[in-house]
Amino acid sequence: MKITKIGGGVCAARGFRAGATRAGIKRVHSEKDDLAIVISDSPCTAAGVFTKNLVKAAPVLFSKRSLRANATKRFMGVVLNSGNANACTGPQGLADAAETARMAAERFGGTANSFLVCSTGRIGVPMPMDKVRAGLDQLPARVSRKGGKDAAVAIMTSDTFPKEAAVRVKTPAGTFRLGGMAKGAGMINPNMATMLCVLTTDLEIPAPELRKALARTVERTFNRITVDGDMSTNDTVLALANGASGVAFAPGTVAEALDQALEGICRELARMIVRDGEGTTKVIDLRIEGARTPADARRAADAVANSLLFKCALAGNDPNWGRILDALGYSGAKFNPNRVSLFYGKDRLVINGMPDPNANIESVKKTAALPEFSIRVHLGAGKAAHEVLMTDLTEEYVRLNLSE
Amino acid sequence: MKITKIGGGVCAARGFRAGATRAGIKRVHSEKDDLAIVISDSPCTAAGVFTKNLVKAAPVLFSKRSLRANATKRFMGVVLNSGNANACTGPQGLADAAETARMAAERFGGTANSFLVCSTGRIGVPMPMDKVRAGLDQLPARVSRKGGKDAAVAIMTSDTFPKEAAVRVKTPAGTFRLGGMAKGAGMINPNMATMLCVLTTDLEIPAPELRKALARTVERTFNRITVDGDMSTNDTVLALANGASGVAFAPGTVAEALDQALEGICRELARMIVRDGEGTTKVIDLRIEGARTPADARRAADAVANSLLFKCALAGNDPNWGRILDALGYSGAKFNPNRVSLFYGKDRLVINGMPDPNANIESVKKTAALPEFSIRVHLGAGKAAHEVLMTDLTEEYVRLNLSE
Repeated sequence: MKITKIGGGVCAARGFRAGATRAGIKRVHSEKDDLAIVISDSPCTAAGVFTKNLVKAAPVLFSKRSLRANATKRFMGVVLNSGNANACTGPQGLADAAETARMAAERFGGTANSFLVCSTGRIGVPMPMDKVRAGLDQLPARVSRKGGKDAAVAIMTSDTFPKEAAVRVKTPAGTFRLGGMAKGAGMINPNMATMLCVLTTDLEIPAPELRKALARTVERTFNRITVDGDMSTNDTVLALANGASGVAFAPGTVAEALDQALEGICRELARMIVRDGEGTTKVIDLRIEGARTPADARRAADAVANSLLFKCALAGNDPNWGRILDALGYSGAKFNPNRVSLFYGKDRLVINGMPDPNANIESVKKTAALPEFSIRVHLGAGKAAHEVLMTDLTEEYVRLNLSE
Repeated sequence: MKITKIGGGVCAARGFRAGATRAGIKRVHSEKDDLAIVISDSPCTAAGVFTKNLVKAAPVLFSKRSLRANATKRFMGVVLNSGNANACTGPQGLADAAETARMAAERFGGTANSFLVCSTGRIGVPMPMDKVRAGLDQLPARVSRKGGKDAAVAIMTSDTFPKEAAVRVKTPAGTFRLGGMAKGAGMINPNMATMLCVLTTDLEIPAPELRKALARTVERTFNRITVDGDMSTNDTVLALANGASGVAFAPGTVAEALDQALEGICRELARMIVRDGEGTTKVIDLRIEGARTPADARRAADAVANSLLFKCALAGNDPNWGRILDALGYSGAKFNPNRVSLFYGKDRLVINGMPDPNANIESVKKTAALPEFSIRVHLGAGKAAHEVLMTDLTEEYVRLNLSE
């Protein structure tokens, strides 16, 4: 088995095309595209993972329902827009999401159930359906095998760069491809956040298998990143598989190859999201180990990753272990504070819950000033571990979020 | 029964004195006092409520232990310092807290078990005991019936003003007094935070009754404020009662009077702490009602009060109800999003989970620009309610916390 990075994003897999246009859903002064489509030449199986927020945007409700209801599992593609989240828009919002899917099918083939829908942007504003319709009219002329990047750009909100990744996977059973695009920026937290992600593959795989692989991967990647602790109403990860490679999913090598490729792509996209978090200047690999249980490890990691005080210290290049211990203490994880040790990069800063007298403070300070580094905490309470990819909190973040 | 506000802080109650000095525990360049004492002329009953953080500072462990162990419940006072939290300092820290209490008794009378200890400041730095000793040597000359404010100033860290409150309580059984001081600033969150509070009363009251009244009150006041969602290792609320008024606690009028006075004082001090939160420009009374259960009401309130995105919107005078609904949705509270209504002051902004078409947006915007106002959310799921006093999140907060 050999996995090689390639270009193309959502169009890297055979039989997928994409494109984008400026429908004018974003505020008037925006010159950016805001409507995108990813489409397959042949029907796909599909799977999705959605926000756990109780307040779900209409496209989330619609796409969840489609994935459940579309018995034949024959999907043609995904319509995505930025500028309007279609959230808190009531029954009209749901009707608008369905109408968007129907209009896409009208222009690209398939039935009203063949298209999934993703939205991101302002909450509580009705979808301007006349603009969506006009935008969809323009899309067929703009869709191509090279349109992956256009689509990745069109779904950006406060993102500063488009997020794409793709790989070619060689297996004894043949070669297939897997690619994806994502958007992030604010509202990023485990259980996903204002993030959208579309993954495409030309592997042939039944929907239940695709669903299992996707759920497992999201749990290990997108659900372990945090920018600001807020979880959005619109988070969606979708995967489409059209079988165009001629390689069929089977337990063993192909299944393992898919898992590895999927995890690689999602990990790469997740890291891009964190790196591009609003106002972010640092990306930290935070690892909690020696926890009593996996749940404790996760609690501890989440508390540290979402501590405002610690995130501010990160922004200030201050290796502030006191704020980490404080957050561990209120995380709900059970441990003996006198057994905790803590590392910045390879340097131990805390031992037995107290400052390590032999710590190399100069080296620790150098680490704390890096744009990306790791922090490792050993709770001394067991063998469970958990990792989170987190950011600092900057004045820029606050400034960006003073108003929508 | 009549409750009247009076001056004097922790010295408002008869038989209490206080004072402060500059022991030099704070960094060298500070000119501020950093060591304070509150002392009673006669032995007191005492009660305390402490941080629930698993990582507890030495003075918290010491004072908790003293309150449990001092069988006669005869306390003489409290020693407090700023500049050093005596947290993550291991067995030496605990010995230092005990030594501080012993030295206070040596200078002011009583036994080693007669003094409680509170510390706030840097974590992980050994207490400079020579400075504490020298400071304690100076304190007897600085203690007086008018020293309440000096003590309130000496415990300030990044607080911008001292926090004192006191009342005279007239009951048919006689008149007693209750006063207090507090410090707050950062790390403020339900279950208390880097806050210290000392309450004094000349009511005569058995320790168990004092404990019950204090626990009840803290739950309703200090445990319902949040600045940054971080809970500190040092939070402590202590109450001392010396009986100097000649009024004895009894069920009925006196008990009710104590409850009212205690809640009034704690509510006032809690509001001062929030108003003085680091970088805070707004204080919001957030009320969640119509929740299915009290636990759901609390979950919903805490999620909204700690949402970074919503706190940023507050700082920007943006009446951003979408971020409130988003936080409610991930709070874990059970409700139907289509039944939620939301008010800024008296103006309804959301009805049935959607923007109220008849909302007076101009009036809402005026409210959102006020330094103090209320936000009320009705979940439409039941009858439970919960209130939290919260703040905005500003660039100034981040700047203040870039390093310790």
